[in-house]
Amino acid sequence: MRTLKLTLAYDGTNYVGWQRQMNGVSVQQMIEEALVPLAGGASPGVAGAGRTDAGVHAVAQVASVNVEFAVPAANVRRALNVRLPPDIRVLDVEDAPLGFHARFHARGKSYRYRMVTSQILSPFDRWFAWHAPEPRDVEAMRRAARAFIGRHDFASFQARGSATVDTVRTVERIDLSTRPDEIAIDIEGTGFLRHMARAIVGTLAEVGTGLRTPESVAAVLAARDRRAAGATAPAAGLTLIHVRY
Amino acid sequence: MRTLKLTLAYDGTNYVGWQRQMNGVSVQQMIEEALVPLAGGASPGVAGAGRTDAGVHAVAQVASVNVEFAVPAANVRRALNVRLPPDIRVLDVEDAPLGFHARFHARGKSYRYRMVTSQILSPFDRWFAWHAPEPRDVEAMRRAARAFIGRHDFASFQARGSATVDTVRTVERIDLSTRPDEIAIDIEGTGFLRHMARAIVGTLAEVGTGLRTPESVAAVLAARDRRAAGATAPAAGLTLIHVRY
Repeated sequence: MRTLKLTLAYDGTNYVGWQRQMNGVSVQQMIEEALVPLAGGASPGVAGAGRTDAGVHAVAQVASVNVEFAVPAANVRRALNVRLPPDIRVLDVEDAPLGFHARFHARGKSYRYRMVTSQILSPFDRWFAWHAPEPRDVEAMRRAARAFIGRHDFASFQARGSATVDTVRTVERIDLSTRPDEIAIDIEGTGFLRHMARAIVGTLAEVGTGLRTPESVAAVLAARDRRAAGATAPAAGLTLIHVRY
Repeated sequence: MRTLKLTLAYDGTNYVGWQRQMNGVSVQQMIEEALVPLAGGASPGVAGAGRTDAGVHAVAQVASVNVEFAVPAANVRRALNVRLPPDIRVLDVEDAPLGFHARFHARGKSYRYRMVTSQILSPFDRWFAWHAPEPRDVEAMRRAARAFIGRHDFASFQARGSATVDTVRTVERIDLSTRPDEIAIDIEGTGFLRHMARAIVGTLAEVGTGLRTPESVAAVLAARDRRAAGATAPAAGLTLIHVRY
């Protein structure tokens, strides 16, 4: 047996997300099916570092898979890219220590969220940003962001109905940067609950319009209630940037 | 009567090009149909500055239309954007001098062509660049580009079967800039024949791989024969950037 580490980029627009679902095609399914000819008919189970939602993108998702075949890593990459559609690309394949697991062994992940603030959303951003043209106080958003830094119970920022019981996570960094007509929010943490990055962005966005104060975020965290936080920001704005091991 | 000047951005991926065609939906048709409710049932003819091909994009195409209605320009913009799909956006509508014609009155246009040179094409570039991973000598391409500058007969760079008889055009500027994994080619001229920008790029690309010398371009121009020039570069890489009046 042999464990492969795959680095993947994908445009999540046409997928139900990373994880296999009954209601449509997932990125995981595409990768697993592309591996079938190499694996000699069996479909090996592929684990992804981050279970990106439908419409969320990745520039460097990491996945792991245990295989029996001996094809060199570079040839695996080529074979997968030939079979995959152009909205999913395998950037790298390498041999990892036996038993390497993309999710369990991940030490941190970073995401970027893009809010486009122009009156009109460029056609080229329509799948890759949240169109949020309301005036926003970025300094207030930055102050609010500081409240997330560190180890907290993020139960208020977890999708309703999630089965995850231990909702304590560590956010290491939230940086807001501005460009003309754009606010980019970079979030880095040891782990993310379902919808957590987008709920943080949605809450910061409400601070930006003055609907909430920066100081109110501490109470939102303390509430441990999804209803206390802001709306979940749209999936299109979110991209998984990097997984740290 | 009243003449409106529209500035438009579009992702050309899903269209047969700017101009109305029998074989699919054009950007022109979309704009004309979006104007119908304002125009009270009639479909006014819209003229575009550049007749971009299928798959070619625009960040600031300009179009003109003569209308009878008195709706303020800003409201026209809003009404059009409500009716148009998100891959076509009206960035600006203004009242122009009566009889202003987007194509006949254009004094120049600039296009950008993007060649992506990485081994693997990013999913995010798949509709917006030519994937051209072969090593290329950009300095040789720059030397070749100089031969196009000025007033020349571009018959060798016009799509076969074009009806245009006067094939003399003036190219004012061709700049090649490089970024990691990318060569961008900016071309500015008084007017462009059908496929001219893409045939220039295709020819420069062949200089880049050593298939042609920079010095050979003068003979290609002199030949006045489409077969003398390089292949037409793929539409996806081309974007209409600006129209000058």
